[in-house]
Amino acid sequence: MGAAAVSVSGTMPRPAVRPEERLGIALVGLGYYSTDVLAPALQQTEQVYLAGIVTGTPEKAEEWSKKYNIPASNIYNYENFDSIADNPAIDIIYVVLPNSMHAEYTIRAAKAGKHVICEKPMALSVRECEQMIEACEQAGVKLSIGYRLHFEPTTQEVMRIAREKPFGNIQFVTAGAGYRESRADHWKLSKEYGGGAMMDMGVYSLQGARYSTGEEPIAVTAQTFVTRPDLFREVDETTTFQLEFPSGAVANCHTSFTANMNYLLVNAERGWVRLQPFSGYGGIKGETSQGPLNFPEINQQAAQMDEVALCIKENRPMRVPGEEGLKDIKVVEAIFRSIQAGGARISLT
Amino acid sequence: MGAAAVSVSGTMPRPAVRPEERLGIALVGLGYYSTDVLAPALQQTEQVYLAGIVTGTPEKAEEWSKKYNIPASNIYNYENFDSIADNPAIDIIYVVLPNSMHAEYTIRAAKAGKHVICEKPMALSVRECEQMIEACEQAGVKLSIGYRLHFEPTTQEVMRIAREKPFGNIQFVTAGAGYRESRADHWKLSKEYGGGAMMDMGVYSLQGARYSTGEEPIAVTAQTFVTRPDLFREVDETTTFQLEFPSGAVANCHTSFTANMNYLLVNAERGWVRLQPFSGYGGIKGETSQGPLNFPEINQQAAQMDEVALCIKENRPMRVPGEEGLKDIKVVEAIFRSIQAGGARISLT
Repeated sequence: MGAAAVSVSGTMPRPAVRPEERLGIALVGLGYYSTDVLAPALQQTEQVYLAGIVTGTPEKAEEWSKKYNIPASNIYNYENFDSIADNPAIDIIYVVLPNSMHAEYTIRAAKAGKHVICEKPMALSVRECEQMIEACEQAGVKLSIGYRLHFEPTTQEVMRIAREKPFGNIQFVTAGAGYRESRADHWKLSKEYGGGAMMDMGVYSLQGARYSTGEEPIAVTAQTFVTRPDLFREVDETTTFQLEFPSGAVANCHTSFTANMNYLLVNAERGWVRLQPFSGYGGIKGETSQGPLNFPEINQQAAQMDEVALCIKENRPMRVPGEEGLKDIKVVEAIFRSIQAGGARISLT
Repeated sequence: MGAAAVSVSGTMPRPAVRPEERLGIALVGLGYYSTDVLAPALQQTEQVYLAGIVTGTPEKAEEWSKKYNIPASNIYNYENFDSIADNPAIDIIYVVLPNSMHAEYTIRAAKAGKHVICEKPMALSVRECEQMIEACEQAGVKLSIGYRLHFEPTTQEVMRIAREKPFGNIQFVTAGAGYRESRADHWKLSKEYGGGAMMDMGVYSLQGARYSTGEEPIAVTAQTFVTRPDLFREVDETTTFQLEFPSGAVANCHTSFTANMNYLLVNAERGWVRLQPFSGYGGIKGETSQGPLNFPEINQQAAQMDEVALCIKENRPMRVPGEEGLKDIKVVEAIFRSIQAGGARISLT
């Protein structure tokens, strides 16, 4: 098929990348997201390939090695992880561990001289986020947070609408992200591991409010609700939060480990934008007051990792730098402070 | 067209009502809603007709008298209003005055021996609502609140979904109702007249949360936001509130006199329901996780007033009795109490 035909089909023709020019990525932590999402996405990437893995489970190492043709020299465990510094085949380390381990492994990856992608939420505290950013700066490596939606076309249109204001100023946003989590033994129900609805799904609602206004909140109030106290002894189950933005826009958002929901509704002076679902790995469905948004379905994670690799190759700033993750954790900390203070307004300025 | 053909078209065949069997209604207060909505609706009603008016403006009296062929004997002002008791042509008095006057005129109408429809919100306080209910009971007349959406087919489907649970239990609801109010001299910006976003549009969000769960909230938290302090010196501009329901369902709702918005999103265990807009006089657009809701567009106010008239004729309970309005005002009072207490949780049990 010629370039013209490709162009007509709506995709941008890309220059071919020779295999030896692709960057090597190593996934740290081979849970669901690495196994079922990132590894398949890495079969579609053009700028980066699955070069290595870090796992504490020898059976997984063997399985992945066979399935993805990963040489033994690129397979690490949590004891020998730091020796990845000596492996020139690994350019990028993607931290896909439970939330409480994001800071430690991002910092160790940076010290090993590798660029880092860290899954969301960036870390458990502002302090950890700042340490991660500092470690990467000191090591001269780049850091990106796994906000795949920043690479998703319908989401990018929401960002454009915030920026270019075709419907006038954004006035009100609501976003809800939740699913029913009932695995009592999962780390997402553990405080030690950084679990809870707000940290997991709530960050999508928060991101939605931030990118659909294009602003940073100046104050927050929050509430939390428990209906399954047997499961939610340590972490939040359903959390609601309100954000005030400098323009006067208000967001009223929610997240839950009990209620299934996924939508982003943006109301502007002269129209609205609605994505439902808005944060899925695929199937994002958008509409505005003017009609449906018809953007192509893409592999978000492949687009994300390719863009990260290009930013490294071309020495450009990351589209989703560590600072972007830090901004969310600042708000998340304020949300928990508000909840502890019985819903009091917490200033972010 | 035969009865069979009518039945096929999806509408219920109704027995013809002779003009002299229709009940007479008098509108009290000839503002926008009476002029542009109720009077036209009364040209489509079958059980009730526009028999009289109550107005303080002689020019309006003359205009309406000509336009709707209203005899001078059925035209009242606020001085002689109580003498309506002696007029057998008036069966129902519809109170369409500013919110602060709902209680007084409902009680005076009841004392005049007339059935009453009172616009929403029912009144400014629980105490007023209770006095209105008591006055109607003592007078042996019926009282209904102007919640026209209870007669609207897509809304009735939302109520059915709450009741019959085809998608399982309702887990989370959000509702937003607002428009940009900039008329500094309008009573809706006056505290004395019972203005403010929560009283006006917020009651739609609250109703939405109540009828889409089919439950009464057991606790509430609330927040309020001001971005145009010049306009909103006395009443609330943008208010958010959270409701806890006995089943564990949570609602996170909002209303505004600054942001244009109108939607109801209901998330259940196995699906969702979305109405956008959900509270318009027409054009309500519904969809569930299984597809669009295609209900006929009706004249909500005509359906409401016809049903009120039928309930009176057949001596049945009102579909929207005073108690329904009271339930909302109980929550509204708690919302304002929570705001005054800095977002504290107010129990409703």
